[in-house]
Amino acid sequence: MGLIVQKFGGTSVRDRSRIFNVARIVANTRKAGNDVVVVVSAQGDTTDDLIAKAAEISANPSDREMDMLLSTGEQISIALLTMALQELGISAISLTGWQAGFATNRAYTKARIRRINTERLESELARNRVVVVAGFQGLNRNDDITTLGRGGSDTSAVALAAALHADRCQIYTDVEGVYTADPRKLPKATKLKEITFDEMLELASLGAQVLNNRSVELAKKYGVELEVLSSLNPMPGTVVKEETKVEGMLIKGVAKDENVAVISILEVPDVPGMSFKVFSLLAQRNINVDIILQSSGRGNNKDLTFTVPLTEAQTAISVLEENKNRFGGGAISLSTEYAKVSIVGAGMQSHSGVASTMFEALFNQGINIHMISTSEIKISVIIDKTDADRAVAAIHDAFIH
Amino acid sequence: MGLIVQKFGGTSVRDRSRIFNVARIVANTRKAGNDVVVVVSAQGDTTDDLIAKAAEISANPSDREMDMLLSTGEQISIALLTMALQELGISAISLTGWQAGFATNRAYTKARIRRINTERLESELARNRVVVVAGFQGLNRNDDITTLGRGGSDTSAVALAAALHADRCQIYTDVEGVYTADPRKLPKATKLKEITFDEMLELASLGAQVLNNRSVELAKKYGVELEVLSSLNPMPGTVVKEETKVEGMLIKGVAKDENVAVISILEVPDVPGMSFKVFSLLAQRNINVDIILQSSGRGNNKDLTFTVPLTEAQTAISVLEENKNRFGGGAISLSTEYAKVSIVGAGMQSHSGVASTMFEALFNQGINIHMISTSEIKISVIIDKTDADRAVAAIHDAFIH
Repeated sequence: MGLIVQKFGGTSVRDRSRIFNVARIVANTRKAGNDVVVVVSAQGDTTDDLIAKAAEISANPSDREMDMLLSTGEQISIALLTMALQELGISAISLTGWQAGFATNRAYTKARIRRINTERLESELARNRVVVVAGFQGLNRNDDITTLGRGGSDTSAVALAAALHADRCQIYTDVEGVYTADPRKLPKATKLKEITFDEMLELASLGAQVLNNRSVELAKKYGVELEVLSSLNPMPGTVVKEETKVEGMLIKGVAKDENVAVISILEVPDVPGMSFKVFSLLAQRNINVDIILQSSGRGNNKDLTFTVPLTEAQTAISVLEENKNRFGGGAISLSTEYAKVSIVGAGMQSHSGVASTMFEALFNQGINIHMISTSEIKISVIIDKTDADRAVAAIHDAFIH
Repeated sequence: MGLIVQKFGGTSVRDRSRIFNVARIVANTRKAGNDVVVVVSAQGDTTDDLIAKAAEISANPSDREMDMLLSTGEQISIALLTMALQELGISAISLTGWQAGFATNRAYTKARIRRINTERLESELARNRVVVVAGFQGLNRNDDITTLGRGGSDTSAVALAAALHADRCQIYTDVEGVYTADPRKLPKATKLKEITFDEMLELASLGAQVLNNRSVELAKKYGVELEVLSSLNPMPGTVVKEETKVEGMLIKGVAKDENVAVISILEVPDVPGMSFKVFSLLAQRNINVDIILQSSGRGNNKDLTFTVPLTEAQTAISVLEENKNRFGGGAISLSTEYAKVSIVGAGMQSHSGVASTMFEALFNQGINIHMISTSEIKISVIIDKTDADRAVAAIHDAFIH
């Protein structure tokens, strides 16, 4: 009835039984009358094994040769999955990234897709074949193999769905969809039927690692309807699209992110351009600054407090200490015992009182808020890490149950 | 100071230390002022591991998908060897079969090279790079990956040497060259400095598995000078070329082949076309018949005796029994306790007495000859398997020492 792109990650094809599980899902989709293009990642630990092989040879292998090496992982997967489909009586053919027409820029190990030449793909579909495409890879203008970087198979699938004008792009993972909170931590969290692209982007950046962010951005840009679902439990997942129908839910999810560090610079001279100097130093090192809090000037000075990913905190501190004289600040301090808890929901734009409901829930639990950040569809608070799980449960209760 | 193609097999690149061993050989060749193109096979057991993965999925996987799968083995090797060369400070780049311009016919898993488009290769050489090429693989007119079948990396190397007009094609193996007999069995066997293509072809077909036969045929056709040498012991090997200089050696080698079975069909009607019927039945099943012995007609019947590879003997017997009525023969018997011992040497064409020297050596050992076959550069005898090693030693003594 339509054209469906289905993407399966490495754990979904990690061994014989999982490969046949995937083949059966694809076969059922095909037998229901759909054209199907499948995108697969490398099996289980293959990519890590290949990286280890390279590490044995060189501490700093060339990016071009790494891509040559790593792209074999998906090539193995597509051949095996295609054999399994044929074993189930489904006409199928595998295509590497370059055979499927993925043209990328030159950036080895983190290439971006320039366009997809769908000629071969469409001719295989016209021959009533399921086409199994290697994710994560393409070809640059030199005819050299490139990879899109880790997690790139999601992007491959969405880009293919856009290029082929597919009716839906299904991303199969090891979770059953997008939840209102992490279900391992909060059993009462419920699966969402639908969510908007923007909500999904906010949730992903908040540590709900269901979908790769680049793939969601791409889906939003080209209007590709996504569905996140489980390859092990055959039931409808969560649909990600532009507008969702009213479900009576103001808030789509509560997320916790512990990859947060808070840096403070005291007594920065209160003259124009000082904040710019600080943040451009960090930007040069590709350090993402998230929440920024600037005290009102006291006399000639102000205090600057901001969050960076915990994993980049030490680099940030070193850069700032080295360049202290350029912005003339005083003591620089680092706090690592914090967490960020956020609520996300496109509905909050038009509803007042969302922030106060959130803050009240935290107040009732005696939880202290250190920093606050808001956007049109998100409110984040920085609190003590030890309070974080309790905060998620309290906020979830206030909004969702 | 020329262009050298060097080929390394799977055991030569099976782990980190072997890869660096190969990289040092290549680096030394490069530093001596040569342009170098390297052809490598898949590491150690990689191909067998991949075949096992496919066997888990299907008892009869499609040939196209097998080629998609198996070609990853060499792709891994070329990336790792190139990284090792770069680690040694050598400018190098890896190319897959299709990047290196190998165009093949459509015969998946046993493709033949149609031609090599050397444009990319030559431009990389012009940039002073060592080019590391994946052996055993190419691309057909559909833009699908094909493999040349096992042992095909030798063929890749020779075809590349021919296309690039290389000065020499070096085949690195785990032996030090071509010997006058199997040195594991006959310690006094000596390494040959030179051997002709035809002699090498006869030796290879006799079980001296040093070089893949197709690669020797190709080298002969295009006049590519081959050298067989060891990747572990750095010393000159054996050169295979059109004409060898006189070394005073009539006989280049004595070979034993135990993959031999003798089949007899008694009392075949002595009318024209009967032999043809028998052997065309076997040819249809791709069974190679080697030595044929036909008794003179006795009355209206004759006996037909011939050898086939031991591994194909049962199939041959079944085919013959099933079709017995078509050639009207009597009892069919199979003997598996034989071996073939042969001497090879282009020099014997112009020397009489070679056969009688060989037969005398066997007679002196009390060894009975069951069948004899001769060609311009080869004499083979079928004898009891238990006599074979003694026969090789006696013949070797008579001709070489």
